[in-house]
Amino acid sequence: MPKQELLAEVIDALCCMPGVGPKSAQRIALHLFQRDRGGAENLAKALQMAVDRLGLCKKCRTLCEHELCDLCASSKRDPQVICVVESPADVWLINQATNYTGVFFVLNGRLSPLDGIGPDEIGLDKLEQQLESSQITELILATNSTVEGEATAHYIAQLALPYKVKVSRIAHGVPVGGELEFIDSTTLAHAFSGRRNIE
Amino acid sequence: MPKQELLAEVIDALCCMPGVGPKSAQRIALHLFQRDRGGAENLAKALQMAVDRLGLCKKCRTLCEHELCDLCASSKRDPQVICVVESPADVWLINQATNYTGVFFVLNGRLSPLDGIGPDEIGLDKLEQQLESSQITELILATNSTVEGEATAHYIAQLALPYKVKVSRIAHGVPVGGELEFIDSTTLAHAFSGRRNIE
Ligand SMILES: [Zn+2]
Ligand SMILES: [Zn+2]
Repeated sequence: MPKQELLAEVIDALCCMPGVGPKSAQRIALHLFQRDRGGAENLAKALQMAVDRLGLCKKCRTLCEHELCDLCASSKRDPQVICVVESPADVWLINQATNYTGVFFVLNGRLSPLDGIGPDEIGLDKLEQQLESSQITELILATNSTVEGEATAHYIAQLALPYKVKVSRIAHGVPVGGELEFIDSTTLAHAFSGRRNIE
Repeated sequence: MPKQELLAEVIDALCCMPGVGPKSAQRIALHLFQRDRGGAENLAKALQMAVDRLGLCKKCRTLCEHELCDLCASSKRDPQVICVVESPADVWLINQATNYTGVFFVLNGRLSPLDGIGPDEIGLDKLEQQLESSQITELILATNSTVEGEATAHYIAQLALPYKVKVSRIAHGVPVGGELEFIDSTTLAHAFSGRRNIE
């Protein structure tokens, strides 16, 4: 509705955020430019800097501005145990909820053939390289317990078979159909410690 | 929680938006940088361009990237009738809901002495200049019917007294305590046409 082009562009651009429709985008844009121009500028610069410099950790594929993320670079983490998760948020959640000391591998997604998301799109070629070249002792599959998360875990378990590595799946303390992000840390800790081997 | 500084900065910066807390900011940031980097860049650029170039219309104070907004620059609008509103959103709403052909004056706020928002902060000095120098025939007070919106309307009515201009207030079709933004256009049209003079 606004004739002002710049404001209309901001409102359009805000709609790229999940949960923000045209109506709330308008409210946000007016709030920013009527009352918090500093916040708008701050957000513009933070986004632009992240666009320019945020990449994936060379080893675990978490979002990261350095070659290696803090966890992969840390000498305190056991590089022989890899926990596979869908999202960087899951890395934070598991680190908070458990006393896990291994490293992670972040898929940044899950297998979804209908959307054109195959193994390479979620970095499984890189995971396989690590299985080949490093002495991995355990692979913990901590993808969501959604249909696609389960299928992805199953696929990775198959992938790992030739490498004779112990493969486990976090226990179903996680409600079936649920996403890790919405689960309290006690449940998550139980699910994590109650993980079972995949034969 | 994230150790990655750039991502943490984006998450912090997103919290300047109304309705966005740390949890949804995290979800938005991950969505953007996992799945819609183009959207993030687009948003960064739109915000920055608006920060750099979006100002207030010299005449009506609506958010606008030119000296004069489209409505003030239009020869089809009657410059002798001014409708005073709190927000640019109200300009769009009234233009959609009514057949109003006058111009607007946008307060970008409302009187709120406790927050340090006095007459000058909402541009009433400029409105008074217009009352002095132009032949205004009618002033329509379309501020929200909240306590502060009513107080602001009352203040402006007093301000206009010496200029012998017809001053009207939009009718209470608008629910008392309600904000224009959340009202259907039929109600708004009734409230607008049923406006009454302020003696
Ligand atoms: Zn890493
Ligand atoms: Zn204008």
